[in-house]
Amino acid sequence: MTFPPIRPELAGIAPYGAPQLDVPVQLNVNENPYGPSAAAIADIATSVAEAAVTLNRYPDREFTELRTGLAAYLSRDTSTPVLPEQIWAANGSNEVMLQLLQAFGGPGRTALSFAPTYSMYPEYARDTHTTWVAGTREQDFSLDLDTARALIEEVRPSVVLLPSPNNPTGTALDPAVIDALCEVIGESGILVVDEAYGEFRRQGVPSALDALPRNRNLVVTRTMSKAFAGAGLRLGYLAADPAICDAIRVVRLPYHLSATTQAVALAALRHADELLGNVASLREERDATVTWLRDQGFTVADTDANYALFGMFEDRHAVWQGLLDRGVLIRETGPDGWLRVSIGTPAEMRSFRHALLDVVKTSARKAQENP
Amino acid sequence: MTFPPIRPELAGIAPYGAPQLDVPVQLNVNENPYGPSAAAIADIATSVAEAAVTLNRYPDREFTELRTGLAAYLSRDTSTPVLPEQIWAANGSNEVMLQLLQAFGGPGRTALSFAPTYSMYPEYARDTHTTWVAGTREQDFSLDLDTARALIEEVRPSVVLLPSPNNPTGTALDPAVIDALCEVIGESGILVVDEAYGEFRRQGVPSALDALPRNRNLVVTRTMSKAFAGAGLRLGYLAADPAICDAIRVVRLPYHLSATTQAVALAALRHADELLGNVASLREERDATVTWLRDQGFTVADTDANYALFGMFEDRHAVWQGLLDRGVLIRETGPDGWLRVSIGTPAEMRSFRHALLDVVKTSARKAQENP
Repeated sequence: MTFPPIRPELAGIAPYGAPQLDVPVQLNVNENPYGPSAAAIADIATSVAEAAVTLNRYPDREFTELRTGLAAYLSRDTSTPVLPEQIWAANGSNEVMLQLLQAFGGPGRTALSFAPTYSMYPEYARDTHTTWVAGTREQDFSLDLDTARALIEEVRPSVVLLPSPNNPTGTALDPAVIDALCEVIGESGILVVDEAYGEFRRQGVPSALDALPRNRNLVVTRTMSKAFAGAGLRLGYLAADPAICDAIRVVRLPYHLSATTQAVALAALRHADELLGNVASLREERDATVTWLRDQGFTVADTDANYALFGMFEDRHAVWQGLLDRGVLIRETGPDGWLRVSIGTPAEMRSFRHALLDVVKTSARKAQENP
Repeated sequence: MTFPPIRPELAGIAPYGAPQLDVPVQLNVNENPYGPSAAAIADIATSVAEAAVTLNRYPDREFTELRTGLAAYLSRDTSTPVLPEQIWAANGSNEVMLQLLQAFGGPGRTALSFAPTYSMYPEYARDTHTTWVAGTREQDFSLDLDTARALIEEVRPSVVLLPSPNNPTGTALDPAVIDALCEVIGESGILVVDEAYGEFRRQGVPSALDALPRNRNLVVTRTMSKAFAGAGLRLGYLAADPAICDAIRVVRLPYHLSATTQAVALAALRHADELLGNVASLREERDATVTWLRDQGFTVADTDANYALFGMFEDRHAVWQGLLDRGVLIRETGPDGWLRVSIGTPAEMRSFRHALLDVVKTSARKAQENP
């Protein structure tokens, strides 16, 4: 055995994470390009200063005020109000997912999703010793209900993870599929609909939150990282039956949410309208980006998120590198041949369009010179 | 199966955590009774306001500046400087411990400690599916080297967890024991010396940090919660061989340390002298408390921490409740018959002494009335 004595299945594995490069145009990790307003920043600073007075004391383990604030925020979007006891939060929705798999997955149990999907899911499974099974999506990245139902009946997963919109494809889940899958999963499992990018969905696309009152095995996760422009804050949360929150309490580390995280998240919630104010323009920019890409002859997956998956490229790495050489960082992810671009400001998207045209032109010229 | 489908070994288990009660004198979770200074609070607020400007961006996944700051802080205490690449940090040292067990424990592996010790350790093992074995300490709560060596040779643990000072007893580890145990553990395991309360150790008691250059399977953990008066900040960290930090990187959730956590921790480090300024008076208050308790005829474990374990009580719960009724919250923990009191301000310790004398007197009178 070599030193250090890491578990054999982890040996030699690269830590998860996109490259963090210092590049003028960052369109690789689906951040919101707009920072908090001066008013929000001032409120955050004041709130943290207040919290810091008692920083020698442990934070509220139950983060009661924050749960109340998050419930009120989600209730804007639903016909049945979401209650504070239905809310759980952690340091990023990745910690929420890990806790869900600690409580409901683990050795002898199976977690299921449908590829292509979020590349962290198998890592949550691996780190909780949950068996990982990935079915497949259709050609257009949608989920076929019969295929999904059949695989669930076959593997009987205790956790099904479905992002809506899906990452990296942008595909939203049909609400009828949510109800149908909750039924086939039954009470021996949970369906986690990961709405990290939920606020970006197009007009008329419902949130899975509406399906909560009908399905007690449904969990809907959200994050403050994306629409809320709070990637640096690391605050993910979920809405579910209170019994599901109680189960997570058994595995959560005590005081997992710091007093400063609670204070900053509450301040951000007070400025929700402002922080979310850019969602409408990001959706417009997204739709315009999709249209432009299609006009150039690229294939683009329908997207309800703040990113677009486009292709197809024979050598996607060369295109990614070409963009990076021109100061534009996007993400090499998804099925082979595709690339994902996050939606930035109009100026950033202009840089992206120019760089992409230049990369394509240069590569066509090279191909002509060296046929 | 009942709903929700929580893992069977977790069903019916109460979440970990001491009661969070609103009581005038809080001496139950070993917090530092002194809050940050006005200067530290102002710096924290300014630093968070600066970090909030780019809160829409993900934080530095490698928290490079913070690792550098923590290394410099630890190097004050050591003859060989601690380097930034030897540092790892997470949201509380409980997250550090969980990550260590995710990387080095897990199914088919064993974690070992010696009871009585910190009551969270078996939970970390449970939540990572690591087999948990607890040996026992001597009558005076010290660790007998031969006993420890024999048990390590028997169970071949991949992780040995030893707090110094031990919680809840306050007992420091003999440095000769650290070297000897690192040797017997060998390269198939790691020894984690948990120095959460390390800064409170008595004059002349060395830190395990000094043993790092001699033992590459040694991990020393610290926290900003205690001596640093930052329980609300949730920042735990470790110093070890860089290869151990690299192993943790594989299991850590990306961006686990928020931009605000990094900013607040860096601000706190800039005010280290100020925040640690109260450690000397807390040690004095601790020693005075031990002396007073012994003068009253109580048994008190030798302590290098900011708490004291004292007894023996026939009905410790009644004493705990009697103190609580008098506005003093301490902790019902440790072996039966013992109670643990955190060291507070002189005024808080006066309240504790008065309340304790009153509880004892009242119970003696009752015993006389109803023999």
